[in-house]
Amino acid sequence: MSMSQEPSLFDLDSAPPSPNSSGEDAELESVYAWFLSQKDYSDRFGEVLRKSIDEVLDGQRTGRYDLSVSKGEGRVEKTEKTYLGTKVEIVARAEFELGYGSPMDYTIEGTSVDAKFTSGSNWAIPKEAIGHICLLMAANDQKGVFQVGLLRTTMDTLNLGENGDGKRTVSAFGRKQIRWIIPNGKLPKNFLLDLKKNSPHILESIWGVSNGYKGSRNGGQARVNNLFRLLPGELLDRTTVVTVAMQHDGPKRVRDARGHLKSSGYIILGHLKPAPQIASDLGLPIPNKGSWVSARLTHVHEDDDRPSTVIDGLRYGLWREGDMTVTAPTIAT
Amino acid sequence: MSMSQEPSLFDLDSAPPSPNSSGEDAELESVYAWFLSQKDYSDRFGEVLRKSIDEVLDGQRTGRYDLSVSKGEGRVEKTEKTYLGTKVEIVARAEFELGYGSPMDYTIEGTSVDAKFTSGSNWAIPKEAIGHICLLMAANDQKGVFQVGLLRTTMDTLNLGENGDGKRTVSAFGRKQIRWIIPNGKLPKNFLLDLKKNSPHILESIWGVSNGYKGSRNGGQARVNNLFRLLPGELLDRTTVVTVAMQHDGPKRVRDARGHLKSSGYIILGHLKPAPQIASDLGLPIPNKGSWVSARLTHVHEDDDRPSTVIDGLRYGLWREGDMTVTAPTIAT
Repeated sequence: MSMSQEPSLFDLDSAPPSPNSSGEDAELESVYAWFLSQKDYSDRFGEVLRKSIDEVLDGQRTGRYDLSVSKGEGRVEKTEKTYLGTKVEIVARAEFELGYGSPMDYTIEGTSVDAKFTSGSNWAIPKEAIGHICLLMAANDQKGVFQVGLLRTTMDTLNLGENGDGKRTVSAFGRKQIRWIIPNGKLPKNFLLDLKKNSPHILESIWGVSNGYKGSRNGGQARVNNLFRLLPGELLDRTTVVTVAMQHDGPKRVRDARGHLKSSGYIILGHLKPAPQIASDLGLPIPNKGSWVSARLTHVHEDDDRPSTVIDGLRYGLWREGDMTVTAPTIAT
Repeated sequence: MSMSQEPSLFDLDSAPPSPNSSGEDAELESVYAWFLSQKDYSDRFGEVLRKSIDEVLDGQRTGRYDLSVSKGEGRVEKTEKTYLGTKVEIVARAEFELGYGSPMDYTIEGTSVDAKFTSGSNWAIPKEAIGHICLLMAANDQKGVFQVGLLRTTMDTLNLGENGDGKRTVSAFGRKQIRWIIPNGKLPKNFLLDLKKNSPHILESIWGVSNGYKGSRNGGQARVNNLFRLLPGELLDRTTVVTVAMQHDGPKRVRDARGHLKSSGYIILGHLKPAPQIASDLGLPIPNKGSWVSARLTHVHEDDDRPSTVIDGLRYGLWREGDMTVTAPTIAT
């Protein structure tokens, strides 16, 4: 569902919560209050959308990280985009332990609620949902934003025209009626997509290293080595590693990368002691479980102006142009 | 895609490989030879189909294990069935390291090949695939069978009529032309689906135990406890456990179940020593990684006719009606 003639959902002025006109829609208000009473609901919706997108991209099998690619290698098929809405419905049901509804998707506080997701600019509401409350969810991975709101879909709040499936979109008036649960959510980061936007040459280098390999598996280790070599100081998550590796066992690829990069002076820090302390000493982001940060080290003197750390009696700081290349120390992991 | 007016694919006489008429379709034969040269290709296709079905069912979030449920709680939506074909295409590409094709799905031995999957009785071939080689895959989870074959889709091998999407099915003549890579594959077991077929009352007891709980998570442990209590001697895999738990961390639920079932005399054996030896001593299936088997134990004498095992100096055999209930021993895991 993409309607390029309409303004993007995320280009609109940030939609303020609509006024709670006294008892105007008691069912909707009760569903709204229920979501607002859920612990960390905003972070959890962000995770629901991140996980759903990542599972459909299936990076460990496909190397994909960009939903918007529709042609050639790494394309995302239309059936996958359609299915993403179903996946979001499933993941949200599990996360908030929502019941199945009949005929709608959910039952929340005794009220039937239909789940509708879009990665585009509007939602497609089928005939059978009209008159019901819709949980409208939208995510834009390119911009790293998401929104969640409630709307009772009526003749007023939908556009008149129908698309091929007999579905109708939310009207400009309808948008103003949306009761926003999360008007301006920040989607958990898609590291590789950000890299594509900000440093496409690094991304090309990471993938380019395996061009000579036949089969994705053989090149996976080389790509992971390059990932850590080219992005020191960046916190890299499991999704990023398995997508670059195109293999399930990301942690194993990281362990092997340590050996490959040691002679060039690189360490890869994970969440196990003493790695987080070393990251902290060096002024790097601190990895938690399922994330890693690499650093190229060199020997420094105690009076060097760089942050430094002592490993096995030797003092190390971050390598700079002109510094000696050293063999990286081995850290218990 | 389900065509109930046609005979089920799996009801047909098991289709024998079609004769290799000398060079009739060199491209097709070259793709055929390539698949046959792949190590363990039959088991690997079985795993591809099993994994694809299980991932779409998403048991850990939904509790689902039956693709054929189309209504009510645990229903599988049409968009999910459609997407299953795409998932199979993705998982097969990754498993056999097939390249992307253009415009078709794959390139194999320099030839464009389109992937087509059905969980029904025929395949839907879109216009743009006509004239190309199709990798036809079919799986029937109810019957535990699958097939994989190759067909060049021509006017002769397709039925004349089109469905709503302008897709055409494989004709009776076409079926005879299929070059079978795997004419009669055995799908890896769907344990819960088999249980539904063979012992529905046990399945009801497992799920029924959590009826009093609010929210899936709270009841997950109770269901897993019941799973191991009601099915001693059965090898239970990770998919079964996470589906019953409706939680990601199946192994944790199993560990906790050990504590809950101990006083009733149940042990749960995993793949770590000494559990496999104990399973072997007791004549139980031997668990490998990601599977477990439970047993209800009682004390037995050395001259008892049952298989027995000694744990911490005490001899145990499988409990029978009338035996004493003992506290199960703790086994290092």
